[in-house]
Amino acid sequence: MSIIIAVDVGGTQIRVASFRRGDTEPISINKIATRGEGEIIDRICTTIQKSWPENETVEKIVIALPGPLNPSQGVIFSAPNIPEWHNYAIGSEIQNRFGTPTLIGNDANLAAMGEWKFGAGQGHQNLLYMTISTGIGGGIISDGQLVVGANGLAGEVGHIIVEQDGPTCSCGGKGHLECFTSGPFIAKYALSELKKGRTSSLQAINDFNAKHISEEALKGDALSLEAISRAGKYLGYAITSFVHLFNPSIIILGGGVSQSGELLFAPIWDALNKQVMNTTYLKDLMITKASLGDNAGLLGALALGLLPDQ
Amino acid sequence: MSIIIAVDVGGTQIRVASFRRGDTEPISINKIATRGEGEIIDRICTTIQKSWPENETVEKIVIALPGPLNPSQGVIFSAPNIPEWHNYAIGSEIQNRFGTPTLIGNDANLAAMGEWKFGAGQGHQNLLYMTISTGIGGGIISDGQLVVGANGLAGEVGHIIVEQDGPTCSCGGKGHLECFTSGPFIAKYALSELKKGRTSSLQAINDFNAKHISEEALKGDALSLEAISRAGKYLGYAITSFVHLFNPSIIILGGGVSQSGELLFAPIWDALNKQVMNTTYLKDLMITKASLGDNAGLLGALALGLLPDQ
Repeated sequence: MSIIIAVDVGGTQIRVASFRRGDTEPISINKIATRGEGEIIDRICTTIQKSWPENETVEKIVIALPGPLNPSQGVIFSAPNIPEWHNYAIGSEIQNRFGTPTLIGNDANLAAMGEWKFGAGQGHQNLLYMTISTGIGGGIISDGQLVVGANGLAGEVGHIIVEQDGPTCSCGGKGHLECFTSGPFIAKYALSELKKGRTSSLQAINDFNAKHISEEALKGDALSLEAISRAGKYLGYAITSFVHLFNPSIIILGGGVSQSGELLFAPIWDALNKQVMNTTYLKDLMITKASLGDNAGLLGALALGLLPDQ
Repeated sequence: MSIIIAVDVGGTQIRVASFRRGDTEPISINKIATRGEGEIIDRICTTIQKSWPENETVEKIVIALPGPLNPSQGVIFSAPNIPEWHNYAIGSEIQNRFGTPTLIGNDANLAAMGEWKFGAGQGHQNLLYMTISTGIGGGIISDGQLVVGANGLAGEVGHIIVEQDGPTCSCGGKGHLECFTSGPFIAKYALSELKKGRTSSLQAINDFNAKHISEEALKGDALSLEAISRAGKYLGYAITSFVHLFNPSIIILGGGVSQSGELLFAPIWDALNKQVMNTTYLKDLMITKASLGDNAGLLGALALGLLPDQ
């Protein structure tokens, strides 16, 4: 049986897994730190080499990458934490080194494919996946096809505008979803409320983050509850826009912030019920947590590798 | 050669055109008022009969309909101005009467297909079409496929949220694009400014509408210029969200409000330049006026009829 090698390049860790066609359990997973001695590309290739099963044919190498890229050209435009990659043709570089067909994809787009083929989205043909942590990324499956766009840049679900005069986003825009619902902005909101003189159990935590806020919310802290609920409300506004645009049958939420569970999900449904243009959109809609955790990117790379050649 | 009959059902007029496969000039167009003696369905069928070329084979009937519908089931959920249609299986009704395969589609979705195959969007594979008049509708083409969604309800581009605490929309939601950029809301804004005591040449026009405002803006009236510019700015915010989600290579604007031309287009680009997360999205992006006018729906129905059977 032939082998697909999946690579997930993160800001802190690179993971390489080899899969036998038809299997979602990897034969092996190798992990290295993204930063270390030597060039990143060499470190990736060494780890691919290490993951190459002996006496087997590797059919494809598929690489999940952070940041904007063009999948059809195999070029990554830029990557957070990897400044040396600028309009870098990583696809052909790796393809040439191994003589093996190599595909690349945006990591959040591929995580959407992973959840679709092997996770919470199985059986759906119209699916939206969002990963909500430091930033907000995602991917859209429309009628069984990943939406990639003209230059491969589609699916930036964290950068839709929900309040045009809102806070300034990490990307420079204003009032994008990320400014309300990403981890750092949830913490920023709580901090700004504390500065107004509110009291909260968060005051006992040095340099608190969204995870602390979620924990304190579960313990009943009013400000923490409000901060999570506000994040969910804005997420609900964004999801309203998504259902009107894509009419998905399932929306899958991954990433650290999604772990707040019902504290986040209840205000999403609240906002959605108030804002939706027609309840038909909600009749069969599921909103659910992601099921693949950290493996979504690797399994998404596998899913892309299993598609027939275009 | 076989024939495709295209039907465009509007709130005031029903138009039926027959096309020879390979031709975009209709053999005939017949128009009737939507309201008149007898049931609407009978009136439509009589007009189809009248448009049926003698001694020819009609391969398909395709019907563009206003309002939410499920194209795969051939069911329209509801239609503005046609209250008798409620979860109505119009597709099978017409198919049974003529014994001819019959497809239905949302009129704005089909207009997107029309502009894509025969109008301003030819040659593009990732396209967004918006029609901006009394309401705002549209359609999305992603990688050469119309985005229809799980129940056929996708493409409601007028109902994405641009300012979560904005005015109440015709659909009941708040701060949807339609509340800022549709004709009635442009007029409403101008009127509210006049009530604040501003002066404008609009004061001389009884019961003015967005068309009057566009005309007065072209003559230099400050309030009219501001009203159109504001509509364009909010449209630019919505388009920012669309480019981040779909990464289209062309955005086509139709409907009365789009006729304001540069007065509308300049603030769109302005907002987009300020709000986009990465200028790569704008590098090859065209924003342009629709080219098919009132025929977009009929030609879109033709385009759908020409697709291979799914």
